[in-house]
Amino acid sequence: MLGNLLRPDIEKMIRDKDWKHLRQEFAQLDPSDLAEILEEFPLQDAALVFRILPRDAAAVIFEYLPLELQTKLVQSLADEQLVNVVNAMAPDDRTRLLEELPPEVTKRVLGSLTPSELKIARQLLGYPEDSAGRYMTPEYVAVRPDMTAAEALSYIRKHGKGAETLNVIYVTDEKGRLLSDLKLAALVMAQPTMKVEDLSDGQMFNIPATADREEFVAAFEKYDRVALPVTDSKGVMLGIITIDDVLDVAEAEATEDIQKLGGMQALEAPYMDSPFLDMIKKRAGWLLVLFFGEMFTATAMAFFEGEIKRAVVLALFIPLIISSGGNSGSQATSLIIRSLAVRELELSDWARVMRREILSGVVLGSILGLVGFLRIVLWPSRVAVYGPHFVQVAVVVSISLVGVVMFGTLVGSMLPFLLRRLGLDPAAASAPFVATLVDVSGLIIYFSAASIVLRGLL
Amino acid sequence: MLGNLLRPDIEKMIRDKDWKHLRQEFAQLDPSDLAEILEEFPLQDAALVFRILPRDAAAVIFEYLPLELQTKLVQSLADEQLVNVVNAMAPDDRTRLLEELPPEVTKRVLGSLTPSELKIARQLLGYPEDSAGRYMTPEYVAVRPDMTAAEALSYIRKHGKGAETLNVIYVTDEKGRLLSDLKLAALVMAQPTMKVEDLSDGQMFNIPATADREEFVAAFEKYDRVALPVTDSKGVMLGIITIDDVLDVAEAEATEDIQKLGGMQALEAPYMDSPFLDMIKKRAGWLLVLFFGEMFTATAMAFFEGEIKRAVVLALFIPLIISSGGNSGSQATSLIIRSLAVRELELSDWARVMRREILSGVVLGSILGLVGFLRIVLWPSRVAVYGPHFVQVAVVVSISLVGVVMFGTLVGSMLPFLLRRLGLDPAAASAPFVATLVDVSGLIIYFSAASIVLRGLL
Repeated sequence: MLGNLLRPDIEKMIRDKDWKHLRQEFAQLDPSDLAEILEEFPLQDAALVFRILPRDAAAVIFEYLPLELQTKLVQSLADEQLVNVVNAMAPDDRTRLLEELPPEVTKRVLGSLTPSELKIARQLLGYPEDSAGRYMTPEYVAVRPDMTAAEALSYIRKHGKGAETLNVIYVTDEKGRLLSDLKLAALVMAQPTMKVEDLSDGQMFNIPATADREEFVAAFEKYDRVALPVTDSKGVMLGIITIDDVLDVAEAEATEDIQKLGGMQALEAPYMDSPFLDMIKKRAGWLLVLFFGEMFTATAMAFFEGEIKRAVVLALFIPLIISSGGNSGSQATSLIIRSLAVRELELSDWARVMRREILSGVVLGSILGLVGFLRIVLWPSRVAVYGPHFVQVAVVVSISLVGVVMFGTLVGSMLPFLLRRLGLDPAAASAPFVATLVDVSGLIIYFSAASIVLRGLL
Repeated sequence: MLGNLLRPDIEKMIRDKDWKHLRQEFAQLDPSDLAEILEEFPLQDAALVFRILPRDAAAVIFEYLPLELQTKLVQSLADEQLVNVVNAMAPDDRTRLLEELPPEVTKRVLGSLTPSELKIARQLLGYPEDSAGRYMTPEYVAVRPDMTAAEALSYIRKHGKGAETLNVIYVTDEKGRLLSDLKLAALVMAQPTMKVEDLSDGQMFNIPATADREEFVAAFEKYDRVALPVTDSKGVMLGIITIDDVLDVAEAEATEDIQKLGGMQALEAPYMDSPFLDMIKKRAGWLLVLFFGEMFTATAMAFFEGEIKRAVVLALFIPLIISSGGNSGSQATSLIIRSLAVRELELSDWARVMRREILSGVVLGSILGLVGFLRIVLWPSRVAVYGPHFVQVAVVVSISLVGVVMFGTLVGSMLPFLLRRLGLDPAAASAPFVATLVDVSGLIIYFSAASIVLRGLL
């Protein structure tokens, strides 16, 4: 919003090459607001503006830019500025940037790092994608258990510069093993002569470096900490993850799940920033898969062509019946996918969920079945529209509704478990995917019920 | 998980009334783990265990319990314990508890508060539901701009006990107006003689007390702070919101949106904790609405009964065509709902989105139309299954697919905007709701195309 207000001014200054006022304008802005303004500019202008920013400001703003723009900017920066910006980035943000860059640019960026920064980047890059190792930063402060509070504070004053956060301080032994954590506030509030080991509350939570995103998001929700330590299998502390990154991760996870649930591949950028063709590809892929799946409905219906010919009335209820199955499946799958994602349900809960969902399906199906039955037998022009056997038709429709809704609920709730069991993302059990599975079986249920109930009548 | 391991031990101790060992066991556990164990117990046992916990431990654990169990426990506590637990709660958590309690219990809880706590609770309750005012806590520390760093630190040591967080300290003037914020770490790192006003970086973000949840979640994402101050319209500081609450809020928002997107009312508790009947109600409501909507398909089809009688082949493609519209609508609606929720899109973007989605719809529809066309004209038994006019049928199907997919994309993308414009939740534009809207119009598009292309042939 601020960006929109200032944009005309800034554009004018760029046109006029009025660098002095531009710098002054920028100095008054918050880095995140400036980043927002830069995002709106054509790359050329953004790169230009970026180059005239004061050294430190440029580094801070760079971290606020979206990954996509960072990638492009990096390629347009001169070596000297690249060194400055990339060295100043937090190691976890740098890791994510390095993953996105084309290999030749990655090489250039790695070349621009100081030896110690390079070591950190390499270390962070060694962990599997989306694991805690990729999100941690090694820039934390650790103290020893036998320091006094005063010693610890003066140690922090000396070594704390550049740490990602000082809100939490870590206590490690001489081998780097994590012993406990300690809030800076607790150190400040403590008697100066108290020992660090006596200040800690003895509670300590750590995240294994191999933990995946959902796991560490869940840990943050559970423990209400602003930072959690990441450790290797021997308990040696490797880095910390801070809660601001976790908030971003949690939001990105939810966005991905919602897009997948809607039946498409997740976009990598916000809607308006995604290139049109890229978005079409991510949508067309799943639409085609669903379309091929849905083709089986035509095959199934061709099989029942004779029944339809004899009783066209049956065709009237096809959309009603298959969509009810799809809707109940969509409810079940979104419930279960989310519960699995936020770890309210585990893989081992599948049997309990199945019992619950079968029961839900029967109850929900019976409600719809009853309404459907009444809709047909109480319809004023029932004989004209549904024929003389309208009661039997109503029976077929309501039996089918119970069956289809139950089947939809079952498929929708069990598919996410199955996908997780197979090591896939449960969110791939999208609402449209479940609906498609249920459509074909719904038709079979419907026409089977019809051929039994209406036998000899038509 | 830990809960499951210890549960048999703890159950045994309860049966044996072995309070001493039970207390010892509890002393070693983290409050959040203990809370997890308590959740699993029948209410009676949970209340019992809760009563034998040490005073302070009970208060801490209470805050970790889910709202539902808190509500029930409060009703089973004796007055003395109630005072203890409720007084120790953070004001923001207390506000949420008070909202959930039956009025007579609320009165009892309010009665158990100390006068100053009562004032805080009343103040927090005055803001609209889901606004920043409801989530803030007034327990922060504010210092004056003319204090030195050393003075500020000693002020914090004196007044910081009980603050929700000391990670960020606020600078206010004599009228309580917010001037800036200051990290505790910056105070610790500063020269003791430096003035507070010179330490602040001059950047300051505040949340109006009336801001809604999505707004303040977006502010936290943007500014990477662990706490943000809440102010009234005059800039007077009222409280702070901490990022751990924001993470919970963001996750709860995403869960709600996903459940709504799946076509149901959002549950108030995790899946397994929701009472069965409650869940059925939240699912049956929308299922019935969708079912009534879908009944129009039967009405629409009755209108085209003549066409179907003359060309049963038309019936075969009904599920394929309407589901393609539903699927493309589901993609569009989930994309747009999420983009609106995370503020990547604003209401004013609707026209740009409409242009983009019409184009997407045409491209996606053409892809499906082409595949559908080939599917029919290249099918080995095409004449037997689709009749002598299979090419015309293929043309009808592919024209309809373009129309239906475009319509689905348009409805799916515009409905969330419309709902937000009307002040409703965009997430109510659920995938099944969009699909239902598209089903009826899809049938009309399909049969209209058929009656034009096949005129005179059948």
